[in-house]
Amino acid sequence: MRFSRMVSKTLRDDPPDAETASHRLMLRAGLIHQVAAGVYSYLPMALRSLRKIENIIREEMDAAGGQELMMPALQPQELWDQTGRKEAFGDNMFSLNDRHGRKMVLAPTHEEVITNLVKANVQSYRDLPQILYQIQTKFRDEARPRAGLVRVREFDMKDAYSFNADEESLDESYQAMAQAYRNIFRRCGLPVLMAEADSGAIGGKDSHEFLLATNTGEDTVITCASCSYTANAEKAESTISELPSEPEATLEEVATPNIKTISALAKFLAVDESKTLKAVFYMSDGEPVFVTIRGDLDVNETKLKNALHSTDLRMADGDEARAAGLVAGSASAIGLEGIKKVVDSSVTNGNNFIAGANKPDTHFKGANYPRDFQADIVADIALAQPGQNCPRCGHTLESTKGIEVGHIFKLGTFFSEVLGADFLDSEGQQHPIIMGCYGIGVGRLLAAAVEQNNDENGIVFPAPVAPYQAHMVALNINNEEVAEAAEKLYKELEAAGIEALFDDREDAAAGVKFNDADLIGLPVRLVVSPRNLKDGKVEIKGRMDTEAGSVPLDGVVAAVQERLAASAE
Amino acid sequence: MRFSRMVSKTLRDDPPDAETASHRLMLRAGLIHQVAAGVYSYLPMALRSLRKIENIIREEMDAAGGQELMMPALQPQELWDQTGRKEAFGDNMFSLNDRHGRKMVLAPTHEEVITNLVKANVQSYRDLPQILYQIQTKFRDEARPRAGLVRVREFDMKDAYSFNADEESLDESYQAMAQAYRNIFRRCGLPVLMAEADSGAIGGKDSHEFLLATNTGEDTVITCASCSYTANAEKAESTISELPSEPEATLEEVATPNIKTISALAKFLAVDESKTLKAVFYMSDGEPVFVTIRGDLDVNETKLKNALHSTDLRMADGDEARAAGLVAGSASAIGLEGIKKVVDSSVTNGNNFIAGANKPDTHFKGANYPRDFQADIVADIALAQPGQNCPRCGHTLESTKGIEVGHIFKLGTFFSEVLGADFLDSEGQQHPIIMGCYGIGVGRLLAAAVEQNNDENGIVFPAPVAPYQAHMVALNINNEEVAEAAEKLYKELEAAGIEALFDDREDAAAGVKFNDADLIGLPVRLVVSPRNLKDGKVEIKGRMDTEAGSVPLDGVVAAVQERLAASAE
Repeated sequence: MRFSRMVSKTLRDDPPDAETASHRLMLRAGLIHQVAAGVYSYLPMALRSLRKIENIIREEMDAAGGQELMMPALQPQELWDQTGRKEAFGDNMFSLNDRHGRKMVLAPTHEEVITNLVKANVQSYRDLPQILYQIQTKFRDEARPRAGLVRVREFDMKDAYSFNADEESLDESYQAMAQAYRNIFRRCGLPVLMAEADSGAIGGKDSHEFLLATNTGEDTVITCASCSYTANAEKAESTISELPSEPEATLEEVATPNIKTISALAKFLAVDESKTLKAVFYMSDGEPVFVTIRGDLDVNETKLKNALHSTDLRMADGDEARAAGLVAGSASAIGLEGIKKVVDSSVTNGNNFIAGANKPDTHFKGANYPRDFQADIVADIALAQPGQNCPRCGHTLESTKGIEVGHIFKLGTFFSEVLGADFLDSEGQQHPIIMGCYGIGVGRLLAAAVEQNNDENGIVFPAPVAPYQAHMVALNINNEEVAEAAEKLYKELEAAGIEALFDDREDAAAGVKFNDADLIGLPVRLVVSPRNLKDGKVEIKGRMDTEAGSVPLDGVVAAVQERLAASAE
Repeated sequence: MRFSRMVSKTLRDDPPDAETASHRLMLRAGLIHQVAAGVYSYLPMALRSLRKIENIIREEMDAAGGQELMMPALQPQELWDQTGRKEAFGDNMFSLNDRHGRKMVLAPTHEEVITNLVKANVQSYRDLPQILYQIQTKFRDEARPRAGLVRVREFDMKDAYSFNADEESLDESYQAMAQAYRNIFRRCGLPVLMAEADSGAIGGKDSHEFLLATNTGEDTVITCASCSYTANAEKAESTISELPSEPEATLEEVATPNIKTISALAKFLAVDESKTLKAVFYMSDGEPVFVTIRGDLDVNETKLKNALHSTDLRMADGDEARAAGLVAGSASAIGLEGIKKVVDSSVTNGNNFIAGANKPDTHFKGANYPRDFQADIVADIALAQPGQNCPRCGHTLESTKGIEVGHIFKLGTFFSEVLGADFLDSEGQQHPIIMGCYGIGVGRLLAAAVEQNNDENGIVFPAPVAPYQAHMVALNINNEEVAEAAEKLYKELEAAGIEALFDDREDAAAGVKFNDADLIGLPVRLVVSPRNLKDGKVEIKGRMDTEAGSVPLDGVVAAVQERLAASAE
């Protein structure tokens, strides 16, 4: 591609309102153009990268036995009412009326439609298993689109669905997809973390997320460097310090004037925070819930939601707390009646805690479970944190920020039961088909790749997803010798199958061309200049090389191929 | 692909409500699955065909200098209000509110968004010309979706847009696109008609449609076998029989009791229909319009709409006619006042017509234009019809039904003026960019290919767009020898790059397999059976061959390649 013919322009300055590196750099390099909040056009270079990602995905899905199809975005709302997901998605789903007043939605995912499709085509266990996938445009009315292509309202996604006759077969499909995902990210040149993830309310058993580590990621992953335990913070378990067992002391009040926080309490009474009990008050589907957890721990709301089988969980507000008779700063489960009580497992392993006395400026010493207070539910609802210990091997846990780029999920029979997608087994018995679903956000993966791979001068594209492989800069292109050599080299690169971006601009200074090359960030930069041509040479430099080298004109193609091969390893 | 693993099933019986061949056959062959009225999933075989069409389109667009990008479907309504096209599309456009109450639309085409994109990237004549294209999903809320993929509400389209500095450059882009379109349809194995088309209200100069001839097509094309003049019926011109010139007779009334139609009038007065004047009454943007045309001709409403610069044209109803003082069956422009009058050019070339006398059961003889009536507009508003003469060479015209699969259009500066997409010429003068647009309905092209290529047994896929190239039927696959030979052959075909569908079903009878092969309609059918294997042979048959031949096992790949090469010529 000749730079002078390319429709997109690079921007010299950072665009306003672009906070993350990928958003800023993708705008500046001319990869994307905003149409509305969270809605973008992909300019030619971005589309080239997306196609490369899509082709890798397609090859790996096909190799894993997937069949590609394509389902529509426009769907009858009725179908989503049947599964209750119109309500579950709520404002996140775009909905509209057609000209005849029929309610339609724009699909954020395709479980309903594919289940119906499979229902119409699968009758017998002989028709199973099936893995079906598409690479298609999805819609999601995000409350706060952000970070360029990371969180958008219209996006490209690869979504796959498996249909199996039994759990063993589901496991096989799930493992095949997990391996395909590992292959895809590896082939894209993008190292990912595969983290255990929460499987949510729908009731699947297993779920894993694939995340690209970046500082601006919205997700937190807990990792163990020793045994490679990796889990999303929502799902992660950890082993916490066990407190030494003590004889149970008597429960007695202490005055704690103006003490409202755990840290102030621990300091005031000169105890470790782990010897205090923290009270947190929630509303779960409209019902108040009182949670007790050790003072040094935090509540993992996903775990709490699962423990409560709640669909809508949130912290209670001050009015709701007062209405339940709670004393701010001094609440505890001791003597508290008429309210659902949840206790984190941590509380069952220690004694003689400091707890609120349910009256102002007063706490109890010597609080013991279950002697002094009881629970409707005891469960692990603690947020795993770096510094705690790995539940598998005991090593100290670490945490990393990341962007979720893939998710695999055992769905079970929720959709097939609601929509009646059954099969007959070898004995003629009818069963609901067991399902799994497997997604990769294609546009988000591109953004995450840029977010993970950049420096102060621009993007550093991993070679397999770079829009072009080589960036050929011709300096003083009005010089006939340069023009001729550059044209010849451009043709040689093309003939060798090397995708080249040829900066043939007559009106751009050398500095501008070098800055654009760094901004766009293709793997190899070539410079054809009068000075180098004198020695019959061309300058060659990898995007992250600190120094440029030079190669004879007739060795450029081989040198580029060598560098690309090296970067693919 | 193994037939036994394929998710789609063939249907033995015709589905209800599928009236056209392509709709019926694409459902029966397992190519598509309906989700809502005019909304379909593409099953794997259809998607394979679509991808082949898309790849051909992409190659030809790239070869013609096009740059591929991708624009979103979701767009702010505001943008469409700016160009007035929200109102122009009316109910045909899907619209919705997002969660913040902002009005959005689902784009049926992308002139607004691409003009803004180009506005942000093109400043100078040096940045022009540009041809930009995408292959993307579009939405259109059709009042009556029909014929499977022919008229749908969500569809894949290739849309290209050219941006030029002057008319000459626009001509070059337009011709490049026209040639690319010819190449695309030829390479798809689909003969098309390229017809002059109406360029509508937006004010472009040239417009051509590409149509596949089929009896169920909604469009009519007028063709000349002699000089190859080809035009859509809406646009077509024709030379009509000139009437012999006569001295102007006196205008006099004749009684025409109960005569209400042209044919009855001509018969009653024993004259040719061409000697009568037909009156047609329209409402144009709310204003009544009285049209006079020769009795043997019909009004072309597109031409009339253009002559009136009307945006909303329809026949007037009885009440509107009575309100204007018209006498049903005896209306004419003679003596009619206070109403806009349009006269077809045909009326200016004859004399002594029979015309209505504007009172019941009475007509005039000897009506002459402009002696007896005048016009606000005189224009060619007649519908060209087979049997009339070619405007270029005079040969007799013919007509053909077809499905429109492509449209190219010189847009001019409408969008660039409204949206402010200007460029600076070499002298620093600012001008609006001149635009063209170029569309191909990808899914519709597939449906039209099936509509044009089928017989009573099923689809007859043109080889370049067939989902697979060879359909290999294994008979008695439980026979070990057959299974072994078929597996070996399947691998050989794959290794040779021949895409094969391998009917490996154990539980399907020979007749079922043959019927499915005819229904799906791949170019070459191979049969591996115990009988043929005895002679070391495989049966080979083209989809339209009446008799099957046979080839030695080791010659199958070459024989298939030979047949495919022959069908590509």
